[in-house]
Amino acid sequence: MQSRTLQELANHVGGTIKGDPETIITAVGTMDSAGVGDITFFTNKKYESKLKTIEASAVIVPGDVETDAALLIAADPYYALMQIAVLIYGHRKHPQTGVSKKAAVSDSATIGDNCQIGDFCTISDDVKIGNNCIIYPGVFIGPEASIGDDCIVYPNAAIYNKTVIGDRVIIQSNASIGQDGFGFATHEGIHHKIPQVGIVVIENDVEIGSNTVIERATLGETRISEGTKIGDVVAIGHGTKIGPHCLLVPQVGVAGSTTLGHHVVLGGQVGVAGHLKIGNMVQIGAQSGVSGNIPDGKILLGTPAIDPGITKRIYATMPQLPEMRKKIKQLEKKLAKLEKSNG
Amino acid sequence: MQSRTLQELANHVGGTIKGDPETIITAVGTMDSAGVGDITFFTNKKYESKLKTIEASAVIVPGDVETDAALLIAADPYYALMQIAVLIYGHRKHPQTGVSKKAAVSDSATIGDNCQIGDFCTISDDVKIGNNCIIYPGVFIGPEASIGDDCIVYPNAAIYNKTVIGDRVIIQSNASIGQDGFGFATHEGIHHKIPQVGIVVIENDVEIGSNTVIERATLGETRISEGTKIGDVVAIGHGTKIGPHCLLVPQVGVAGSTTLGHHVVLGGQVGVAGHLKIGNMVQIGAQSGVSGNIPDGKILLGTPAIDPGITKRIYATMPQLPEMRKKIKQLEKKLAKLEKSNG
Amino acid sequence: MQSRTLQELANHVGGTIKGDPETIITAVGTMDSAGVGDITFFTNKKYESKLKTIEASAVIVPGDVETDAALLIAADPYYALMQIAVLIYGHRKHPQTGVSKKAAVSDSATIGDNCQIGDFCTISDDVKIGNNCIIYPGVFIGPEASIGDDCIVYPNAAIYNKTVIGDRVIIQSNASIGQDGFGFATHEGIHHKIPQVGIVVIENDVEIGSNTVIERATLGETRISEGTKIGDVVAIGHGTKIGPHCLLVPQVGVAGSTTLGHHVVLGGQVGVAGHLKIGNMVQIGAQSGVSGNIPDGKILLGTPAIDPGITKRIYATMPQLPEMRKKIKQLEKKLAKLEKSNG
Repeated sequence: MQSRTLQELANHVGGTIKGDPETIITAVGTMDSAGVGDITFFTNKKYESKLKTIEASAVIVPGDVETDAALLIAADPYYALMQIAVLIYGHRKHPQTGVSKKAAVSDSATIGDNCQIGDFCTISDDVKIGNNCIIYPGVFIGPEASIGDDCIVYPNAAIYNKTVIGDRVIIQSNASIGQDGFGFATHEGIHHKIPQVGIVVIENDVEIGSNTVIERATLGETRISEGTKIGDVVAIGHGTKIGPHCLLVPQVGVAGSTTLGHHVVLGGQVGVAGHLKIGNMVQIGAQSGVSGNIPDGKILLGTPAIDPGITKRIYATMPQLPEMRKKIKQLEKKLAKLEKSNG
Repeated sequence: MQSRTLQELANHVGGTIKGDPETIITAVGTMDSAGVGDITFFTNKKYESKLKTIEASAVIVPGDVETDAALLIAADPYYALMQIAVLIYGHRKHPQTGVSKKAAVSDSATIGDNCQIGDFCTISDDVKIGNNCIIYPGVFIGPEASIGDDCIVYPNAAIYNKTVIGDRVIIQSNASIGQDGFGFATHEGIHHKIPQVGIVVIENDVEIGSNTVIERATLGETRISEGTKIGDVVAIGHGTKIGPHCLLVPQVGVAGSTTLGHHVVLGGQVGVAGHLKIGNMVQIGAQSGVSGNIPDGKILLGTPAIDPGITKRIYATMPQLPEMRKKIKQLEKKLAKLEKSNG
Repeated sequence: MQSRTLQELANHVGGTIKGDPETIITAVGTMDSAGVGDITFFTNKKYESKLKTIEASAVIVPGDVETDAALLIAADPYYALMQIAVLIYGHRKHPQTGVSKKAAVSDSATIGDNCQIGDFCTISDDVKIGNNCIIYPGVFIGPEASIGDDCIVYPNAAIYNKTVIGDRVIIQSNASIGQDGFGFATHEGIHHKIPQVGIVVIENDVEIGSNTVIERATLGETRISEGTKIGDVVAIGHGTKIGPHCLLVPQVGVAGSTTLGHHVVLGGQVGVAGHLKIGNMVQIGAQSGVSGNIPDGKILLGTPAIDPGITKRIYATMPQLPEMRKKIKQLEKKLAKLEKSNG
């Protein structure tokens, strides 16, 4: 952790200052927790009233606001926050162990320069690992898998044979990559295992959450495209292609052979059925169920996933449903009576 | 396993007996499975008819019932059952290995008295472990993490750096504690990783299920408060605070920065959105979706989560929905006709 | 990978040929990806138009179709595909390491002939492992657990004490088998752990997905019956009995003490409540919630899970719900007016 002046921070993020540029900043905090020496950020109008009571020394804002704190005005405050957090804290420092003597590294494996291979890792035959990779203890990397440069694999992740991983990929603990797809041919009541001879490809700059599972393809490949970030306990089916720069929040499930475009956002616990085509920039709200193709740019919510405005009106109307039913019955009776008297 | 007389059991739980106090009890069983020598329990009126046919030697009951078995009458039969199960079986006996020579324990780690550190565990730099802890094989404990007394960590769990764990905490296999929160600043279509510099704090007497994941906070802490029990494959987001004595059943997801009060119960597969405040004693039924704050004491069900009585009436009415729509159309036609004829 | 003539493949699966029996087949592909030398399959009428443009050398079909490719006509094309995939590719080849010197194998463990026990495996006291088993690195097998013949356990799976596993069982990476059930007796606001003294039994020919969790029973057993296939990240509660030849797709949850019949199919993210009886051949669509018993043969969808035709009509009607409510109000007004004018 390093202390900086507000001026240094503003220079770093390309922002401007309102207040004392010599304000010393030593930490980043939330609006609630930040105190003297801290910088915080304001992006959500909902929390505007908090600006009057914050104790932070400075606040990153998109424009002028009323507050006692010094202002760091940046076009994209959350991005500026990220840059400042990296500057002040840096990313996690990893143990520098080199290739541990307690790891089991195959003679036929190739390991690049400056890699850390933790205790009790298994690096199988014909594995290729690039430069500057950090493999935490207990990781399994199966035969013929390859990993690019600058990757981090956290403890006890399992990477099956022939998986192909790009550069700057982060895989969190206990993730499973490349296990067999759920593929069986049912014949006379018996489920016969279909060899899963495809692979998983994970492109550059992907992050995979803890305990997330990505099935290998039956044939061909399951692919996670560049820049996509996948949360914890997500399940990706065999042969599914996740496009670039998607965000898949924890507990999402995407069944097999589905294709997602770029910049798709799936909320928590969303389920997407198999063999679908989800367009670019699609956003699906939490817990929704998707069972059909979705064109580019759609924002959907609910099961079935439809326009969120309609879903919210449905949610608001649902409690009236029993009453509506009663009213329909009353209307029918009254109308019958009227019809009779009019007959 | 030890045999006891019914009298001994009654004394142990502070209950009274109807029947032979010298009845020998060697095991605990369910109403269906229990036979001679077994004690079973009756708490659910739904199963009252089974009392007539049980073959158990004794049954724990809240009051007098008709059955051939001897009765152990206890104010809280399920609690009495627990006490008796502990008396007869005890909790799991753990391998007594001491600190395994096959573990990798940093010289700077501090390990208390009477700990078992299993094979292939990694105990990183500056870790502190209290007395009487059982760390099963393959567990990773990251730098500067601390664990109190009398904890059990089951195989292949991964505990990231700086995690703080109290006393008598149980962490089941393959759990991930303290992995990076799902925090990215998206700028010009690229998701930039925000350093996750907060920690996870797990207070005394918490249990964490297998393959459950608890994200570290971006800033500050994610906290699981004392006495809370979390089931398997649960996902807790960054910065979330789970209050004391909560029960989170398997596959629950709680997104980031949400706060739960004390004695909250979340049913299976419940999803709770981020940045919410869930009050004390709140109970949410299985598969519900929570997207707003909830005051103390509420019992809710469904998506959106509302009064379970209303949800159940909605569920009962929903199948009539297409018919209701048809009827409304018919009513409109008939009414138009009537209006015309009345015109 | 081995090349075969179409005649050899037809003989192998008991099918007939239309086209050149000497066509050389070296690989299996999807209708979209297959090219010269590949065999593909056609089972879904939905994709019939693709038959005209496929570039595969041969296609497995249930009967005559129009296409340029040679035909392999088989009664059950998907089953034939499986047989051909096994013939051409075989199942995964496993590293032949014998019992690794880097594993920790108890002196009291019994290991059959021709087993591969990977690096950093823990085989605890009194474990029994049959013949021809492949235990990948980092697997934990607890005291007194037993495994039959021809099993495969993938990396970092954790199998708790006393678990009983049959023959030809496959357990994927990071699965947890036999961890404590979520069983607590709540007394005066404190949740007391009930010893979980039951076990998990996994019968022959079961497959368990990655990061799937199966709780041991409180008393008695949790049982996965023969031939059942369970996907990734599935949670099975304590004391639950899954019948033979079921298919549980990823992210399914089945709560404790529930019984499933044979050939039950649960779609992705389905939740089944505890203490239920689900009949034989029941099929539940993705994301459904099951809270009551289900008789044999039912096909259900939705929350609550009902006839899929009705659920789909409900789904189609739901967007009209707010409009329906409005119309009811209008009808009431008009009717009141009419009644008045008729009064």
